[in-house]
Amino acid sequence: MGEIKVIKVKQSVLANNDLRAAKLRAELKEKGVYFINVMSSPGSGKTTLLVDLINRLKDKIRIGVIEADMDAVVDASTVKEKTGVKTIQLNTSGECHLDAKMTNEAIDMLDVSDLDLVILENIGNLVCPAEFDTGANANMVLLSVPEGDDKPLKYPLMFTRGDFFVFTKMDARVVFDFDVEKAKQRIRNVNPDATFFPVSAKTGEGMEELCEFLRNKVAR
Amino acid sequence: MGEIKVIKVKQSVLANNDLRAAKLRAELKEKGVYFINVMSSPGSGKTTLLVDLINRLKDKIRIGVIEADMDAVVDASTVKEKTGVKTIQLNTSGECHLDAKMTNEAIDMLDVSDLDLVILENIGNLVCPAEFDTGANANMVLLSVPEGDDKPLKYPLMFTRGDFFVFTKMDARVVFDFDVEKAKQRIRNVNPDATFFPVSAKTGEGMEELCEFLRNKVAR
Repeated sequence: MGEIKVIKVKQSVLANNDLRAAKLRAELKEKGVYFINVMSSPGSGKTTLLVDLINRLKDKIRIGVIEADMDAVVDASTVKEKTGVKTIQLNTSGECHLDAKMTNEAIDMLDVSDLDLVILENIGNLVCPAEFDTGANANMVLLSVPEGDDKPLKYPLMFTRGDFFVFTKMDARVVFDFDVEKAKQRIRNVNPDATFFPVSAKTGEGMEELCEFLRNKVAR
Repeated sequence: MGEIKVIKVKQSVLANNDLRAAKLRAELKEKGVYFINVMSSPGSGKTTLLVDLINRLKDKIRIGVIEADMDAVVDASTVKEKTGVKTIQLNTSGECHLDAKMTNEAIDMLDVSDLDLVILENIGNLVCPAEFDTGANANMVLLSVPEGDDKPLKYPLMFTRGDFFVFTKMDARVVFDFDVEKAKQRIRNVNPDATFFPVSAKTGEGMEELCEFLRNKVAR
């Protein structure tokens, strides 16, 4: 009986979150702002990828960044320092996910009136962030080569929720076995429409293809 | 007011869990079983490390393994196949953590009467698993070289809760910057008594030191 109660609360929390996320998405559409939610494991290279992406895109697209962490500010400082774009830090005080209420507040604080693209770097976690719609137009999910091509088998919800997938640290294949085709197939099994970008922010491999894709998304 | 309610529920959930964990620990002590809870990010090499560790220890110590995943069985099959020790799979149906009730059920199912050491491979996640005492005697936390030496800054609770820390994939330092001393210092800042083992299951570096440490723990 206790369990039934918990599930009901969770369903209502998620339903309320969905409404709020849809409202935020509509508001951003009206303002002409495209909003991307970036999710992955800890240490899969989100911040490094974003710094490189932003520096390639920022001359043509006006970008703002929301960096989420439980209680650190290290990523926001890095992004601000290395790209110069408008960046704010969102701390969750130990919570393992962001919901649409938190991102809505962060977007208000960021002030998106002069932006084309907002990038949210979510908490490094393959479980909880996937449960909550943040109000983003698209979920970009990173899987790094050292993590292994079996992760889609073990964290299916995250790989279902992604709209496009970036395989990061492709240069590390000199020391790690990572079968790109196996990874793609395992993701397609739960997400048939997935798009893939194998990249290395270190060598630049694949970065232009990803930039081109994002430029087209923002231009729509 | 809503928030206060939620916190109270969580406190009571955690208090109940602590009691259950303490009871499980006492029961295992009586049976002469040492119980280790292994936590880390997804893809940091828990399964690979455990397979190598178990194969080095299994002739002298009787070992059983509990593999936790949200809904896969891939790790349990790997461990069973590559080590031959008694292994069971614990699925959490999407939950991001294990609590003492779940581990207690798994330990009953495993049957520990003929074991010296039980190893629990927790869900790959640096946030939620740290919140719950599983009843283990010690928390072994892995940090892999590709994740970066800044993770202790960003997931402080996990690095506070660890009893000993294994830096994995040390062979990958040919492609990744990872400052072992910085990582140690950042962990010591939240956890002054931490012990460290830099290892590579691939090259064998550091594995004997870790085995020796575990043999001594089990012998006590």
